[in-house]
Amino acid sequence: MSDVEAMKKLVGAAAGELVESGMRLGLGTGSTANPFIEAVGQRLAEGEISNVVGVATSVASAELAGMVGIPIESLDGARLDLAVDGADEIGPSLDLIKGLGGAHLREKLVAARAERLVIVADASKLVTQLGTRAPVPLEVIEFGLAATVAELEDFGEPVLRVRGELPVVTDNGNLIVDLWAGLIDQAADLDRSLLALPGVIATGLFVGMANSAIVATDGGLAYLDRSFVG
Amino acid sequence: MSDVEAMKKLVGAAAGELVESGMRLGLGTGSTANPFIEAVGQRLAEGEISNVVGVATSVASAELAGMVGIPIESLDGARLDLAVDGADEIGPSLDLIKGLGGAHLREKLVAARAERLVIVADASKLVTQLGTRAPVPLEVIEFGLAATVAELEDFGEPVLRVRGELPVVTDNGNLIVDLWAGLIDQAADLDRSLLALPGVIATGLFVGMANSAIVATDGGLAYLDRSFVG
Repeated sequence: MSDVEAMKKLVGAAAGELVESGMRLGLGTGSTANPFIEAVGQRLAEGEISNVVGVATSVASAELAGMVGIPIESLDGARLDLAVDGADEIGPSLDLIKGLGGAHLREKLVAARAERLVIVADASKLVTQLGTRAPVPLEVIEFGLAATVAELEDFGEPVLRVRGELPVVTDNGNLIVDLWAGLIDQAADLDRSLLALPGVIATGLFVGMANSAIVATDGGLAYLDRSFVG
Repeated sequence: MSDVEAMKKLVGAAAGELVESGMRLGLGTGSTANPFIEAVGQRLAEGEISNVVGVATSVASAELAGMVGIPIESLDGARLDLAVDGADEIGPSLDLIKGLGGAHLREKLVAARAERLVIVADASKLVTQLGTRAPVPLEVIEFGLAATVAELEDFGEPVLRVRGELPVVTDNGNLIVDLWAGLIDQAADLDRSLLALPGVIATGLFVGMANSAIVATDGGLAYLDRSFVG
């Protein structure tokens, strides 16, 4: 196991310790969320916790959860106790950029229903300002794509996400535009302005949603709380 | 022809007079927008105007435009000179509720690209406050529908739109929730709050978009301009 993988496992295990019997969990997507799902499965198998159910943010997460023995439910009207997910950038006040994996709309739906959202990441994701390295991934409607792209040019450089020659299509049947917006001063304002464009369905900006973060650093794990950063 | 149909024809003809040669037009959807499309076709046929192209907000509008000889283009990056469409409610400052026909997302995309949006309607659509009779139609994502409905309960009574036993599916593959929100004080604020919900893709609130309205009243046609109402 590489150092990076070992650190992700450590972060996932730490997040797994937050899970208590009877909880409904939001299960994030990606290489940092996966070790969390595995850790929960292990605690269930060892009998440390019981009666835990998960709501998955992607097909991949649902499959992994099934493999490690976490029962999966769909996202219904009931609230979730805890959601754990990765992020592409973690900025001041734990505002986030997510969506390089393309699952951010479902991740946001799940996060919005959770009492607590805990982010798991390595230290490379910490930035002093959002937009330092990552674009803002937008889920956009296919109809009128060129018109939406034209509107987005007021905010930066919009780039349609492709894989090979073809546009990437989300689980919801929409397209993704990565908006290179430069350093982001007011994430909440930018989020609102982007959502006001009719063709923009969802943004990868998660403003005021994360409660805490568990971050792997060279010196070990760092626990960040929204109340204490920013 | 009934009185209502005669009035709609009169309104459509009046809107048709706004069209000039060389214009790119947004073509609305519904029984009040249709006579406008027919009027433009007639003016083209009679040689009063030429070089007009249309961008349709629905398959039905595209078909009608084709029948009356208006060349149809897709919504690309270029701006539209004029869009003409109906509305379900016309409130102060020409803020609108649209979407009882289920085409409001495409209508909004087209309207957003137009230099001018002119609403055609009969006087029954005029209200002193939005929400007087109509719900706010929302286009919502199918994933997590129950969670979205639960969030919407903070704003009123959300009702999934069905036809027979099955949910209505939009041209974009999403569902429609009609939100009975009561009288709406601050349409712009409500719009922003609804769009901030991850599951809400589009609202039927058109705030600050319409420039003018041509309304059929018992006394004849009334021309309303955003600058002079509200």
